[in-house]
Amino acid sequence: MSSAALSAGTSANRQWRLAARPKGLPVATDWAFRTEPVPEPGEGQFLVRVMYISLDPAMRGWMNDARSYVPPVGIGEVMRAGGVGRVVASRHPDFAVGNHVSGVFGVQDYALSDGRGVVRVSAETAPLPKYLSMLGMPGMTAYFGLLDIGRPVEGETVVVSAAAGAVGQVVGQIAKIRGCRVVGIAGGEEKCRFIVDDLGFDAAVDYKNEDVRAALRERCPDRVNVYFDNVGGEILDTVLTRLARHARIVICGSISQYNNEGPARGPANYMALLVDRARMEGFLVFDYAKRYPEAAKEMAGWMAEGRLKSVEDMVTGMEQFPATLLRLYSGANFGKLILSVAGDAG
Amino acid sequence: MSSAALSAGTSANRQWRLAARPKGLPVATDWAFRTEPVPEPGEGQFLVRVMYISLDPAMRGWMNDARSYVPPVGIGEVMRAGGVGRVVASRHPDFAVGNHVSGVFGVQDYALSDGRGVVRVSAETAPLPKYLSMLGMPGMTAYFGLLDIGRPVEGETVVVSAAAGAVGQVVGQIAKIRGCRVVGIAGGEEKCRFIVDDLGFDAAVDYKNEDVRAALRERCPDRVNVYFDNVGGEILDTVLTRLARHARIVICGSISQYNNEGPARGPANYMALLVDRARMEGFLVFDYAKRYPEAAKEMAGWMAEGRLKSVEDMVTGMEQFPATLLRLYSGANFGKLILSVAGDAG
Repeated sequence: MSSAALSAGTSANRQWRLAARPKGLPVATDWAFRTEPVPEPGEGQFLVRVMYISLDPAMRGWMNDARSYVPPVGIGEVMRAGGVGRVVASRHPDFAVGNHVSGVFGVQDYALSDGRGVVRVSAETAPLPKYLSMLGMPGMTAYFGLLDIGRPVEGETVVVSAAAGAVGQVVGQIAKIRGCRVVGIAGGEEKCRFIVDDLGFDAAVDYKNEDVRAALRERCPDRVNVYFDNVGGEILDTVLTRLARHARIVICGSISQYNNEGPARGPANYMALLVDRARMEGFLVFDYAKRYPEAAKEMAGWMAEGRLKSVEDMVTGMEQFPATLLRLYSGANFGKLILSVAGDAG
Repeated sequence: MSSAALSAGTSANRQWRLAARPKGLPVATDWAFRTEPVPEPGEGQFLVRVMYISLDPAMRGWMNDARSYVPPVGIGEVMRAGGVGRVVASRHPDFAVGNHVSGVFGVQDYALSDGRGVVRVSAETAPLPKYLSMLGMPGMTAYFGLLDIGRPVEGETVVVSAAAGAVGQVVGQIAKIRGCRVVGIAGGEEKCRFIVDDLGFDAAVDYKNEDVRAALRERCPDRVNVYFDNVGGEILDTVLTRLARHARIVICGSISQYNNEGPARGPANYMALLVDRARMEGFLVFDYAKRYPEAAKEMAGWMAEGRLKSVEDMVTGMEQFPATLLRLYSGANFGKLILSVAGDAG
């Protein structure tokens, strides 16, 4: 047992490893729970005690054996996940014991790193979970996806789906800051109330209890200039029928389709792109890595002014990983979903 | 009977009027053949003896009672179509008897016009059918769709579907002029030979006799930078699996879907837009009307240099209209499909 492990108050490294490639919605047995010795850092490495694990819709895609923007997680490998933690042992010149760090550490208590893709974060600037939310990938995704791909102009109408989710909540608030009319699509009255009353969206569409097409017609009288799509499927198809001329559709995700056993459902109404001279464009936040500091600075300013806020949905306990991840796909989470795994050990 | 009609060598105005809204592939009885008196121009009008009628895939969409970029053709109305003809009577200051003109004259022998949307064309500059092909909408569509939406860069790979069709043949040749590697997708050996041997494409994919996916892998080793899509359906889905990073998909048409009785098939692989940071964009050539002269001038130059040629597929006889239009949807036509209706009367 390493001294690092002892100092972190635990003696073993709990892990969820991929055990099977799911068909459709994952089940708990698609991962195996393992307890391994805490590793020791070699030269040029450091050991991170993971404190908060980011649970993201994209994790479903990483479980498939298919070409994508990152390789699939291999069977037997620790499930890939972003996280925030504390350096508890180090033989790396740039990372010292006690530093808080953010990176792709996996679903486990301890991760070895050589520093690639890892950034130091400050617990004084913001609570650590914010680095997985507003100041992390969801925030960066919202910022660059909306501003760089969607390019909203003051006075335009911006619609975002999964509006109460990690990315959606930020997209809508930034669009409001930019002077747009903002309509969020979310499931259930509570989420719809939240995005309007707490986040300041102009209107909400409750896809679980309303006819989305009729609701969009009513709440987007000037049609839709920018649609930030996190869900795909039927909602994307419906928004396609309400585009304004030269509309931009930002393809950020398609959570409604991630667990399909057959092929995904394509947007049958895509010829609206021609009728409305519109475009549909995808992006990956990683391509903007060099500009993260610029985005973080601007968003931190908005947060300080009280114009931008984020909600995190925190679940505690490493053993809760499979059940918690599945909440994303049923629409049960409220804001950014995070698994807290270190107790007071961080 | 008007003197105009007599001077054109015929005494009646044959017309095809829309009689029913087709479900799926149109049948001949979706139009009614009518013979009416030749009309006389009122003040500010002129009468056109239609000589060549343009048959275009988009005509199928105009038969549907659905929102689009133009209103549907009404039941009982003359079927909408572009055409080229000769002015045979005029009470309009800008159009004189003997002028050749291009405009939306409908599927009929004679059309009255007030000049809106009509342009004079010169039979000396080019054979009149070219004004429905290279120097008309198909040429303009290819030019602006490829250059303004697709934005190919020298050395990139451009793929075009319906490559031996009216638009596709021009897209591929312009892409070659711009220094791209050009691969055309067409049906049958004859068309594939034509686009490679006669038009100078680098390669062809015969979708009727080849596995398109395997063929694209082989003939686009650097993947696809620009895809100019005229067909939609399975071919669009297949090309989506071969995109290069930051690829552009130009949505020009979806002829494979126009006769679907149910909803169109959406591109199930559209999430490739995200993986490959790509965009899919629609356009309408009419938006470029002010720039047509610029395009026509550049294309005429290329034609004069022998770098750009077009093939027309000419069918004779007004009575052939329904059967000829249907050739578009079976892939039977070869180049720009035109109905010649005036005999020697033009």
